[in-house]
Amino acid sequence: MRYEESVIEGRNEVIEAFRSGKTIDRLFILDGAADGPIQTVKREARKQGVRIDFVDRKRLDEISVTGKHQGVIAYAAAYKYSEVSDILKRAEERQEDPFIFILDNIVDPHNLGAIIRSANMAGAHGVIIPKNRAVGLTASVVKASAGAINYTPVARVTNLKNTIEELKSKGLWFACADMDGECLFEQDLTGPIGIVIGSEGEGVGRLIKENCDYRIAIPTSGDIDSLNASVAAGVIAFEVVRQRMLKAKRNGHSV
Amino acid sequence: MRYEESVIEGRNEVIEAFRSGKTIDRLFILDGAADGPIQTVKREARKQGVRIDFVDRKRLDEISVTGKHQGVIAYAAAYKYSEVSDILKRAEERQEDPFIFILDNIVDPHNLGAIIRSANMAGAHGVIIPKNRAVGLTASVVKASAGAINYTPVARVTNLKNTIEELKSKGLWFACADMDGECLFEQDLTGPIGIVIGSEGEGVGRLIKENCDYRIAIPTSGDIDSLNASVAAGVIAFEVVRQRMLKAKRNGHSV
Repeated sequence: MRYEESVIEGRNEVIEAFRSGKTIDRLFILDGAADGPIQTVKREARKQGVRIDFVDRKRLDEISVTGKHQGVIAYAAAYKYSEVSDILKRAEERQEDPFIFILDNIVDPHNLGAIIRSANMAGAHGVIIPKNRAVGLTASVVKASAGAINYTPVARVTNLKNTIEELKSKGLWFACADMDGECLFEQDLTGPIGIVIGSEGEGVGRLIKENCDYRIAIPTSGDIDSLNASVAAGVIAFEVVRQRMLKAKRNGHSV
Repeated sequence: MRYEESVIEGRNEVIEAFRSGKTIDRLFILDGAADGPIQTVKREARKQGVRIDFVDRKRLDEISVTGKHQGVIAYAAAYKYSEVSDILKRAEERQEDPFIFILDNIVDPHNLGAIIRSANMAGAHGVIIPKNRAVGLTASVVKASAGAINYTPVARVTNLKNTIEELKSKGLWFACADMDGECLFEQDLTGPIGIVIGSEGEGVGRLIKENCDYRIAIPTSGDIDSLNASVAAGVIAFEVVRQRMLKAKRNGHSV
């Protein structure tokens, strides 16, 4: 289980937790407390629909771990990142060819959440995101993932390019979503694969793109620039599923 | 061009426009005005990132159409709904088999916008939504559509079931997204087609479902309930594209 709860104590600490987008599961406030910071905590709680339990000092002292609660204690959901090796192990355990998503600077939390959701539903083994610049596992991401975050491992790495190199040496092929690439439906996506999805607007970074084995394009014919990043990821995910089903059928395996 | 601009004058009118989710493109406020309603207008403008032009009374009088501006004039984007016949005409003009999305109570504006975006990029001829209960073309929808709303006609109908009956009589087949349906990849989606997508959570309504010719399921293998509605619509949209490309190829047409 990758889900853990952490206890956050103190006024500024709790305000900070709300503002950094943490998922607050429970909130205890000293009954009668009404100073400025406490009002701020209440406002943030209302904004995010968090229920407040007003309790007496004795109860707060009991809950407190640090003994320095200042009248406020919150329980926050904390999602632990997995390691890339956990993702590979998952594929091994299922006796499947690795199927991984690599997200190059997805900044919209709805998109990140929806991609984790699609990855889960397509049977992918995990999602890799970069440590810098991109969005992390905030409350909005968790919500948009519709629970998938509890099942599909997400690893955060310092250098995507190095991670891709490493995974290549372990037999994975990398396909990068690129509007100037080859038609998605004509590429073989049945082997051990990493699908690289870039940010909306900028697409996949040049260095990463050059490191990929092939570039795949969803054949579009519209009037606007591009698909939503999470829709593009979903379309590619289920093309992988389609091709793998077809291959299994050809090889006489049940699917 | 389906995009038009409308002029909204008066305090309550402009506040109402903001609150109903209209896209305000420009906002003129009488320089120095600071009463309650004006403050509300300013607050709504800030919330939605609308730039305010503070101008003198003479300028407002010039812009005003009604002569009753009360110190506030807004320019709002107004998207006109199309008719179902416009959508069919579009297919005819392009000499293509009709390819339409029918949305049964999509309530999330991000999803509605993203589906219009995907419909555009997949070359679909239009999107049909019901008049009641579902979300309309609000500012959030327009934004999430990434401009597609300017190209892809959206029709709003009173009774989806009747509209489906009518379109069936014109030769369209209806495929309804349904988790208990037949595998998407094994259905023929190359003819004149309407794809019915239900709301997140509830799926397609029973009456509508019974009126569809077939039920299609995206083959998922995850731990959670369902895909995001806009991702599901995108996956189905591009399966239609894939099958149509393949058919055109077999028939010796270039794609």
